[in-house]
Amino acid sequence: MIDFGIGQPQLDQLPSDLLLKGANRLFVSPDNAYLNYGPGQGDPNLREALAGFLGPHYGFEVDPQTLFMTGGASQALHLIAATFAQAGDTVLVEDPTYFLAPQIFRDLGLKVVGVPIADMGLEPETLERAIQEHRPKLLYTIPIHQNPTGVTLPQERRETMIDICREHGVLVVADEVYQMLTYRGTPPPPLARQIASETVFSVSSFSKILAPGLRLGWIQASQKLLARLLRLGLLASGGGLNPLVGSLVHKLLISGDQDRYLSELKEIYDRKIDLMDRLLQDHLGKMVEYVKPVGGYFFWLKLNGALDADELEKVAATEAVGFRPGSKFSMSGRHRDFLRLSFAHYDESAITEGVVRLGKAVELLRSKIL
Amino acid sequence: MIDFGIGQPQLDQLPSDLLLKGANRLFVSPDNAYLNYGPGQGDPNLREALAGFLGPHYGFEVDPQTLFMTGGASQALHLIAATFAQAGDTVLVEDPTYFLAPQIFRDLGLKVVGVPIADMGLEPETLERAIQEHRPKLLYTIPIHQNPTGVTLPQERRETMIDICREHGVLVVADEVYQMLTYRGTPPPPLARQIASETVFSVSSFSKILAPGLRLGWIQASQKLLARLLRLGLLASGGGLNPLVGSLVHKLLISGDQDRYLSELKEIYDRKIDLMDRLLQDHLGKMVEYVKPVGGYFFWLKLNGALDADELEKVAATEAVGFRPGSKFSMSGRHRDFLRLSFAHYDESAITEGVVRLGKAVELLRSKIL
Repeated sequence: MIDFGIGQPQLDQLPSDLLLKGANRLFVSPDNAYLNYGPGQGDPNLREALAGFLGPHYGFEVDPQTLFMTGGASQALHLIAATFAQAGDTVLVEDPTYFLAPQIFRDLGLKVVGVPIADMGLEPETLERAIQEHRPKLLYTIPIHQNPTGVTLPQERRETMIDICREHGVLVVADEVYQMLTYRGTPPPPLARQIASETVFSVSSFSKILAPGLRLGWIQASQKLLARLLRLGLLASGGGLNPLVGSLVHKLLISGDQDRYLSELKEIYDRKIDLMDRLLQDHLGKMVEYVKPVGGYFFWLKLNGALDADELEKVAATEAVGFRPGSKFSMSGRHRDFLRLSFAHYDESAITEGVVRLGKAVELLRSKIL
Repeated sequence: MIDFGIGQPQLDQLPSDLLLKGANRLFVSPDNAYLNYGPGQGDPNLREALAGFLGPHYGFEVDPQTLFMTGGASQALHLIAATFAQAGDTVLVEDPTYFLAPQIFRDLGLKVVGVPIADMGLEPETLERAIQEHRPKLLYTIPIHQNPTGVTLPQERRETMIDICREHGVLVVADEVYQMLTYRGTPPPPLARQIASETVFSVSSFSKILAPGLRLGWIQASQKLLARLLRLGLLASGGGLNPLVGSLVHKLLISGDQDRYLSELKEIYDRKIDLMDRLLQDHLGKMVEYVKPVGGYFFWLKLNGALDADELEKVAATEAVGFRPGSKFSMSGRHRDFLRLSFAHYDESAITEGVVRLGKAVELLRSKIL
């Protein structure tokens, strides 16, 4: 089974060698404070190194005081929602959105409402109407290389979005884990640029640029917003959310290993996109439509001929190929004629074989229907 | 300043050497799945090794299926409370209790009510009355080497406590992080023994037996109770709560390093207790009363002569010695004549100097008052 539904890095590309190097520096250091309860916000040295790493990628200077280390982006979403919303409150999410985010919000008793997005992402009028109708506390958005659509919100829309949210007292939770995974062109700066608005949390992670198993991420926000998170009893009791892993990653940041690894990753993913694009043209051709991605992890394919992706999933399983049908990403059962393919998890030969199988599956479904 | 208030391990005893050894095994392994999103419950190999480690210490066989790996005990408390109670619900805690736990519950909008404990811990009648009055969802208890009092709940009371809680539909969250830190005698088995009652979560951690910075702990509970935790969106999205650190600790469990390190720790702490006891007799003598601890991290001293520990804290600061005054552990401002001293954080010479200073401070306060 080749499952393009898996939105995870390729196992044999994960950097155990770099971690080995880091560990052999860290665990011999005479300063072993990382083994004890750490500061709630995360080790100052780590935050300084992270700020130094982010600056050139983001295109502006990052203040270490605005960074708060977490156990991954998912924990960041959980803690922000638990702190800034209460059971019964509403969170707006994009429709379609990252399919595993809504459950994090629902677990906290929050209502999740989808706001349809268009070719350029969230539209100001649609957003404002949704805010007026649902009076949400939070807006969860993926402003760059959106999961699943690949859409990036243009600069002017970002500013309008912040203005609208600030005006209505809605906090923006921006999932920017794909910001540094831009393979072509220059993306708009992350919403982390706008934290002075007191309206934005930028959530990001080492999961996609180093390894998911690290469970290390961060929130970037104004010190005023961070202050509420830093008062959490969880931090007072447990110390920082992942100090040992943070200190390990610190070694990779200051050695330049993280930067070099990210450059390699970007080349690899860029090649995989070219390959998958060519294969999709060859084997699915006019049966699908899509915009070739320039970043992130995903192709978002529209099936032509009113085919249903949930139906296609069943046929594809018989051809030993998988994907995530569009309906999975929707709050409203929309996008049934879409599918999301990840190019990240497989090597070039598996991608090739998988797309061939997918082509067969689509033809099989078409022949059944026609 | 020698601060006996710090309830943390001694920095230069923390096992960087063992982690170095573990890292040099882990990061060369061809199986690098620990670098990817892990199973929500934690790696099955880790859970099996942990079960094998716990069995002999607990005195009964532990089923790996009843273990759920977390990012420390504090995260465990947070997730259990977030999942099994809702804003507005009540949590009973012991009075006095671990002073950083109540905030974890309050952050979730829960009401925290203290139940006074006596020399043998929670008393059945007092507990039942509190349950009838406050209708709590959860009871948070530290049944062994209690923080701060050092009290261990006797076996027969444990059974009565579970019976009462089950009858009233109250879930017991047992903080058993000190269970394996018993230096003299045989303690009752942990409440983890009673998970078949479907009424108990046993929370524990590697923080006190290996290193706090690992942020690795576990919940032991019936599979039925665990199932609700395993449905958390946080797990579906982020994978296991700390897979890389879990795999690192796995190496220390299977090599026997964890077991050997725990034996060393117990000898060290036992010696520190003897030392502190002797010093307290010599330098504070009849000015205080206490039961010499047989486990855990703390001495719980009652000041004779109606002295106030909050007042003593100010005087002690001028002598460059610190502790946690009893009022800090109380929901009701009780225990003002108690102080908690940790013997874990300092070496023998600092303990000696600290107790000498403390003796001076108590005498100073007495001379002021008399």
